[in-house]
Amino acid sequence: MLAAVYTGERTFETTTVDATPVGADEVRIAVRYVGLCGTDLHIFHGHMDARVAIPAVVGHEMSGVVSEVGSAVSDWRPGDVVTVMPLKWDGTCPACLAGNSHICQNLKFVGIDTPGALQGEWVVPASLLVRVPDDMALAHAALVEPVAVAVHDVRRSELTAGQKAVVIGAGPIGVLIASVARAVGAEVAIVELDAGRRSFADDLGLTTIDPRAVDAASWVEEWTGGAGADVVFEVAGAASAVLSATSFAKVRGTIVVVAIHPEPRPIDLQRVFWRELRILGARVYQRTDFEEAVRLVAAGAVPTDALISGIVPLSSVQEAFETLEGGRALKLLVDVAGDRA
Amino acid sequence: MLAAVYTGERTFETTTVDATPVGADEVRIAVRYVGLCGTDLHIFHGHMDARVAIPAVVGHEMSGVVSEVGSAVSDWRPGDVVTVMPLKWDGTCPACLAGNSHICQNLKFVGIDTPGALQGEWVVPASLLVRVPDDMALAHAALVEPVAVAVHDVRRSELTAGQKAVVIGAGPIGVLIASVARAVGAEVAIVELDAGRRSFADDLGLTTIDPRAVDAASWVEEWTGGAGADVVFEVAGAASAVLSATSFAKVRGTIVVVAIHPEPRPIDLQRVFWRELRILGARVYQRTDFEEAVRLVAAGAVPTDALISGIVPLSSVQEAFETLEGGRALKLLVDVAGDRA
Repeated sequence: MLAAVYTGERTFETTTVDATPVGADEVRIAVRYVGLCGTDLHIFHGHMDARVAIPAVVGHEMSGVVSEVGSAVSDWRPGDVVTVMPLKWDGTCPACLAGNSHICQNLKFVGIDTPGALQGEWVVPASLLVRVPDDMALAHAALVEPVAVAVHDVRRSELTAGQKAVVIGAGPIGVLIASVARAVGAEVAIVELDAGRRSFADDLGLTTIDPRAVDAASWVEEWTGGAGADVVFEVAGAASAVLSATSFAKVRGTIVVVAIHPEPRPIDLQRVFWRELRILGARVYQRTDFEEAVRLVAAGAVPTDALISGIVPLSSVQEAFETLEGGRALKLLVDVAGDRA
Repeated sequence: MLAAVYTGERTFETTTVDATPVGADEVRIAVRYVGLCGTDLHIFHGHMDARVAIPAVVGHEMSGVVSEVGSAVSDWRPGDVVTVMPLKWDGTCPACLAGNSHICQNLKFVGIDTPGALQGEWVVPASLLVRVPDDMALAHAALVEPVAVAVHDVRRSELTAGQKAVVIGAGPIGVLIASVARAVGAEVAIVELDAGRRSFADDLGLTTIDPRAVDAASWVEEWTGGAGADVVFEVAGAASAVLSATSFAKVRGTIVVVAIHPEPRPIDLQRVFWRELRILGARVYQRTDFEEAVRLVAAGAVPTDALISGIVPLSSVQEAFETLEGGRALKLLVDVAGDRA
C-alpha cells in the first residue's frame, strides 16, 4: 500500500510500505483523510528528528473505516467509522496513577513516537478508537482531533456562558478554541497580527483585534467594563503574546498556555501576584474531550468547511507542507483513499 | 504621643504626633507591638515613595488593646485585645463585585496608603479589627498578620494532608508557609541558598535543601518517588527561583507566586504546558485567613518565639531597619507601649 514517508531533511516521499499484521487487541483502519498540523510541520522542519524513527510514517488527525479487528476485540466491527485518540500511556507512572494518564510521564504520541496515519491502512490498538456518526462527512471527522484539543483547552479554563474570553492567535487551534468558547456561550475576541488570519476570523463572525492598530489591553478593559477578561488563551507562541496575556486578564482571571514555547518566556509575575491570576498549562485531551468534539462537529458548531483550505492526494504531501510553511493554508487534508483507489 | 515617622531618604525619626479623633465607625487602639516586614523595608529603601505620604507613619503587623470606640461601634469595647486586617476596598469595582474584595482593583493598604501603627495610638475603622484571645501573648498577636499571609497562600494552593510541598526561600514568610503547610498535614522541604536561614529552618525541624550542594530538582524527584511536588511556593523573588519552581512540580502540580517580582521573569512554559501545571498568584488575605491565623498562633502551630529575632523600642526603629537590611534579623518587633509608659 502507499504511504507518505518522512525521510528527514524536509522531505516526504510517497512510497509503498508493507501492511502491518493486526494484533489481538488491535484494529486495521482503511484511512480516508489525514489532517496536517503544526506538529507535523515541526517534524517536516526536522525539529523532532530525535523523536521520530526515520524513515517515519506520521500523521494523527484522521478519519477512516475499520477494515479488520483483532481476535480479542469485541466492541468494533468492519465498517465502523472512526477517528483515533492518538495517546498511549503506561498506566503505571505517578501521573497515570493520579488519574492524569493523558499526560502520562512516559506518554507515547501515536503518529510521532509510533507510526502514523499517512498510509492506506493503519493498525492501532482498539482502545484508541473514537466512534464517529455514520452521517458525518469523513473530511469533517478528520478535524475531530484538533477540535478535541480546543475542547480540552476550554474545559480546563472553566469558561462558562456569559463570560468573556480573549484568544491570542488566529491559527487553526486559535479559531477552534474561539469556536468552542462561543459554543459554551462565552463572548470571544481574537488578537492576531496577521491581516489574512484576522480576515478569516472576521468571516467566521468572530471579533478580531489588530494589536498594531489599537492598544489591545485598553480595548479588552473597555470591552469588559473595566474588569479584564475571564479567560485568556495563549495560542500564538510568541514572547510578546505571553506578556500581553497577563495584561488582558481580570482579577482572579485564567490564562491557558496552549502554544509551544521552546524557550523560557518572561511573564509579568507582578501582575500574576497583584491580581491573583491563574496560569494553566493545557496539553492534548482526554476521552471526554473527543466525545464532546464529535458532538460539536456533528452539531455544526465548528467551522469545519471554512478551516479546510484544501484536500490533496497522498502523492502531494511534500507540496502540502511547503504550502503550510508559507502560511498559504490553514488546514490541509490528505485524501489517502483517493490514491489507494 | 510618640510615633516613628518615615521622612524619606532612609530615615525614620521618633517624634511627637497629634492624636487622631475617633470617627463614628472607628476605634482607637493603644498599640503594643508592631512587626517590621519586607514591605516596610521597601519603604525604608525609598522604593515606595510614590505611594506613601511623606512624612508617613507606617506599620501594619501589630497588636494592641482597644482604648476608645466610635459612637456607631457596637461589637467592640475598650479593653478588647486586637490585631488589624489592614485592607480597605471600595466595594464597587469589578473585583469586589465578584467577591474578591481583598484584591479590590482600588485597594488601599492601611499602613502604606494610609497611616500605620508605629505610633502610641492608632485609629482605624472598626471593621478592620480581628479579635485576639485574651491569653495570647501580645508579641505573638503581632505575628497574626504575616501568619494570615501564609494561611492564604497555603489555602489558595489547595495543599492537603499527606501531600508534599517545596518552599523556595526561608525568610519569615517562607518559614511561616512551611509551618502552615506542616499544620495542614503536608510534608515540606525548603530550598534556601543562605546557610544562616537554612540553619534557622533546620532548628525548627524543617527539611532544608542547599541548591548549591545538591541538584534540587533531582532531590525533589527522588523525595516524591519520581512524581514531583504537589505544591511549590515561590517566596524567594529571584529569577532562578522561578525557573526552579516549574522543575519541582508534579504533573498537574501547583506553583504559588508569593514573592514580589519587580520585572518580568522567564518561566519554563514548555514545562507548564507539558505537565499541565497551574501557577497561582496569591496576595494578602481574606478574613477567614486571619481567623485561621489566630487559631494557629493560639495552638502553637507557628514558631512565633523563634521568628522574633528581637524587640526594640520605638526610638530604635531606624536602627531596626538597618539591622533588617543587613540580614541580621528575621523579624523585629517594635515595643510601642514601652516608650509610651
